[in-house]
Amino acid sequence: MNTERARLLLTCADRPGVVAAVTQLLYEQGANVVDSHQHTEPDDLRFFMRLEFDLPGLESRLPLLERAMEPVAERFGLQWRLTPAARVKRMALFVSKQDHCLQELLWLWKKGELAAHIPLVVSNHADAREVVAPFGIPLHHVPVTAETKVSAEAATLELMREHQVDLIVLARYMQILSGDFITRFGGPIINIHHSFLPAFVGANPYAQAHTRGVKLIGATAHYVTAELDAGPIIEQDVHRVGHRNAVEELVRIGRRVERTVLARAVAWHLEDRVLPHGNKTVVFA
Amino acid sequence: MNTERARLLLTCADRPGVVAAVTQLLYEQGANVVDSHQHTEPDDLRFFMRLEFDLPGLESRLPLLERAMEPVAERFGLQWRLTPAARVKRMALFVSKQDHCLQELLWLWKKGELAAHIPLVVSNHADAREVVAPFGIPLHHVPVTAETKVSAEAATLELMREHQVDLIVLARYMQILSGDFITRFGGPIINIHHSFLPAFVGANPYAQAHTRGVKLIGATAHYVTAELDAGPIIEQDVHRVGHRNAVEELVRIGRRVERTVLARAVAWHLEDRVLPHGNKTVVFA
Amino acid sequence: MNTERARLLLTCADRPGVVAAVTQLLYEQGANVVDSHQHTEPDDLRFFMRLEFDLPGLESRLPLLERAMEPVAERFGLQWRLTPAARVKRMALFVSKQDHCLQELLWLWKKGELAAHIPLVVSNHADAREVVAPFGIPLHHVPVTAETKVSAEAATLELMREHQVDLIVLARYMQILSGDFITRFGGPIINIHHSFLPAFVGANPYAQAHTRGVKLIGATAHYVTAELDAGPIIEQDVHRVGHRNAVEELVRIGRRVERTVLARAVAWHLEDRVLPHGNKTVVFA
Amino acid sequence: MNTERARLLLTCADRPGVVAAVTQLLYEQGANVVDSHQHTEPDDLRFFMRLEFDLPGLESRLPLLERAMEPVAERFGLQWRLTPAARVKRMALFVSKQDHCLQELLWLWKKGELAAHIPLVVSNHADAREVVAPFGIPLHHVPVTAETKVSAEAATLELMREHQVDLIVLARYMQILSGDFITRFGGPIINIHHSFLPAFVGANPYAQAHTRGVKLIGATAHYVTAELDAGPIIEQDVHRVGHRNAVEELVRIGRRVERTVLARAVAWHLEDRVLPHGNKTVVFA
Repeated sequence: MNTERARLLLTCADRPGVVAAVTQLLYEQGANVVDSHQHTEPDDLRFFMRLEFDLPGLESRLPLLERAMEPVAERFGLQWRLTPAARVKRMALFVSKQDHCLQELLWLWKKGELAAHIPLVVSNHADAREVVAPFGIPLHHVPVTAETKVSAEAATLELMREHQVDLIVLARYMQILSGDFITRFGGPIINIHHSFLPAFVGANPYAQAHTRGVKLIGATAHYVTAELDAGPIIEQDVHRVGHRNAVEELVRIGRRVERTVLARAVAWHLEDRVLPHGNKTVVFA
Repeated sequence: MNTERARLLLTCADRPGVVAAVTQLLYEQGANVVDSHQHTEPDDLRFFMRLEFDLPGLESRLPLLERAMEPVAERFGLQWRLTPAARVKRMALFVSKQDHCLQELLWLWKKGELAAHIPLVVSNHADAREVVAPFGIPLHHVPVTAETKVSAEAATLELMREHQVDLIVLARYMQILSGDFITRFGGPIINIHHSFLPAFVGANPYAQAHTRGVKLIGATAHYVTAELDAGPIIEQDVHRVGHRNAVEELVRIGRRVERTVLARAVAWHLEDRVLPHGNKTVVFA
Repeated sequence: MNTERARLLLTCADRPGVVAAVTQLLYEQGANVVDSHQHTEPDDLRFFMRLEFDLPGLESRLPLLERAMEPVAERFGLQWRLTPAARVKRMALFVSKQDHCLQELLWLWKKGELAAHIPLVVSNHADAREVVAPFGIPLHHVPVTAETKVSAEAATLELMREHQVDLIVLARYMQILSGDFITRFGGPIINIHHSFLPAFVGANPYAQAHTRGVKLIGATAHYVTAELDAGPIIEQDVHRVGHRNAVEELVRIGRRVERTVLARAVAWHLEDRVLPHGNKTVVFA
Repeated sequence: MNTERARLLLTCADRPGVVAAVTQLLYEQGANVVDSHQHTEPDDLRFFMRLEFDLPGLESRLPLLERAMEPVAERFGLQWRLTPAARVKRMALFVSKQDHCLQELLWLWKKGELAAHIPLVVSNHADAREVVAPFGIPLHHVPVTAETKVSAEAATLELMREHQVDLIVLARYMQILSGDFITRFGGPIINIHHSFLPAFVGANPYAQAHTRGVKLIGATAHYVTAELDAGPIIEQDVHRVGHRNAVEELVRIGRRVERTVLARAVAWHLEDRVLPHGNKTVVFA
């Protein structure tokens, strides 16, 4: 892990001079920009920027840098965030019975492709224990029924607090989180929906896809909002299917698409590459 | 054009012995099978088959072959159709102002990639005249307003009869055909919808896609039924987009997807490769 | 596992009447065909067919069926093979240090997506032990150096015999098998090459790809022959890359393509869907 | 055409402060940046940047802006180029008998998707006349034989000079341009090669692909250098094929890929989005 690397994310109403001011500031502070993306949304002229830079002695110089940013932020009305790459996010994985997405994320994490701590896995079933065990991550089994939903969510929320979770990833977690849970958790929640949204919202999208006779099936990774399957989309992909594919084969083919799409979305989020903008996302990948 | 080539399409409830009976019959008649596809739908055990074969002296021997099929069809409850490849379909193209799909089809047709006669192009605008002219195909300008819709459809239907049209292709024709027109025309109508159906049914799908923030845009070629954008899907494809793409760019990128998807669907239909099955299609491509 | 299901694969010079004869025979024996593919290669008019069928009491009736096939095979010059689906192949996995393909295959196998016995994993490194352990499969560590190559191959060959291995899969095994090994093993060997063959034959294909500045990277699963990376291709796929991707990222992106491509190729082979034809393959997927 | 819009392209050895200096300069001149890309090549730390901006009164203020750039360029060792968007490139299209790429480019040009003047089309055959005529562009028929190659190239070069051509696009021009021609023309030449380079260099790539039994066929748009099919790649794409596809079908399927790939590459070049870097390209699309 590069301890001198940090990321600066910012957004503001598009105004000339922002880039010059921010890059000049980083230059003066001795930072060396290694990656840079920017975008102005044509609809509302909102400006977005992500800068990745190296700064020798980052840890000790960070407060200085943050203070230097303040007048610039004031001048241009910036919303901004400065994150050392070494300060990795704490990610909780939620899963039900289908464990392919969980398995994929754990593999990639072990290979070093996902920059995160994973303090715990939460499941409403005990089945995932076997998958989780070799990775040395505790599985918290929190059963959920219609009757126990409120208390189960409270217990889950308590786990999130206790483990200081920054990000929840629903890796095929088949419970719908209440608006109350989403609000109280407060942080980002990424879900993988097993269809090309907005087609086939809700339950059994592969069965819906089979019934409609589509020629491609897809998966969508999105941030969770109170409205089901309607949050900002981070990533999508599809795979070709045909009349030979029964529903079970759509499920099997779809599993690969889900794994790929969720893994990309989570990696991008962990690297601060996804900037929400209303109900959409700007992805600097 | 191979004058000895024909296609046999058939469907029936799946019963052992069908393939043996039909292939034995063709063998006895002296036909040489050059391409063969079959499929049994797992949901309802419906069986579908397409055989392409060469038979010397096809034209004179066709009635004989058809008579020989009758007892087999009777025995297995076959719905079947025998078509000489040389008997190409008569296809009418309908277009409004956007002419990219029209151009693509005309150009492929001229290259010999679409086996059809095109006796006429119908448009509710006069703009297409320039596109159509170099191909020597008459353009019939049939303006449509809310007031004249009934008479315009009647005139259009008369044109279809007069030109003995087998197939209508809506190559970005922005009028919704009435259920009455569809019924009275009686033949297949292929439409290109500029979204990945069932996402973004109806008007302005690219604007809908932009608003929803999808990461892929698509196009769908489908048979037209009385319910808008809900008929059997023949072909679909998508292309990746991102936050950099404004709506106009989605439109531009989408045009290429539309051209590709419609061209494939029409070619398959003309070669009798698309077998409708309820609200789905079996495509033997 | 369906104990009544079997597959008939056959190839011959294309002659009218083959399909009729074979399907009639299966019908008379009481078999119910559930899947069927056929293909005539236009270059040399070679005919290929794969039939999947259910036959009640398969095990006891198989010898009868095979006897019935003999005169038909004689008459049409068929090469043919009849395999009960329940008689799954015995597959050995070979791996070096990169274990992503091994993991993918083991995981799909555990999910029931690969119909095989896996009696052993062979590696020239001990690293894979940790990956293999949770699956309960023995790892045989057979180190290979330039000096020990002959004896190592002999030991490996002995392992293959002992475990009655039908198929070897080189899941990123970085040793080149000698022509002698290939001949003496005698069975099919599937390799995953980490490029879109025939581009970038040999070592370090991602570095080669980076140097050439290609815009897509790929992977190729192929049968191994004595000539390096030149055997019949079973499956290929690619993924888009760009100037932002350093070699290490090509490697990372490529890993996903390799996993997907090898998994598809192995699954097809195990289900007898791949028919070699000279240096090419007919894939009935 | 936006007469206030311009593009600044620059490259230099990566040094801190470049972005700050350049964006500050543009800000002081009153320019409003609307699109920005930058990239540092990890291999050699070469820095690339493309800025698109609006500047009221661009035409009269351009000399001022260029003078202001000089000290910055000096300080950072910049290679740079400032181009008003309204100063569109003059593009010559070269074609032989296969006219699908020519047709595609002319269509897109007429739709306004290619920002270029097309003063002439050059062909070694007269066949393209019919395609070119409706677009009102003169076709220069310059036959080439082994004997006349030198004089034909001289005549062609003269045409380029006369029409002040900035860019030559080889839209399936089946003559190999001599190193001498390339040098003397001096400007960029884009070729479409009908394979996924570096696979299948040279003649008849589809036949080569068919012989090798690949499962994807591709096309590559690249800048022409003296070494055949070895210049910097701008864009590539592929399409899936299988055992059913005879060579003629590979050709037909490939035509669509060629059209798409060449169109993208040409559009990017015309918008100054392609920056050559050694034998590779940085594409800011």
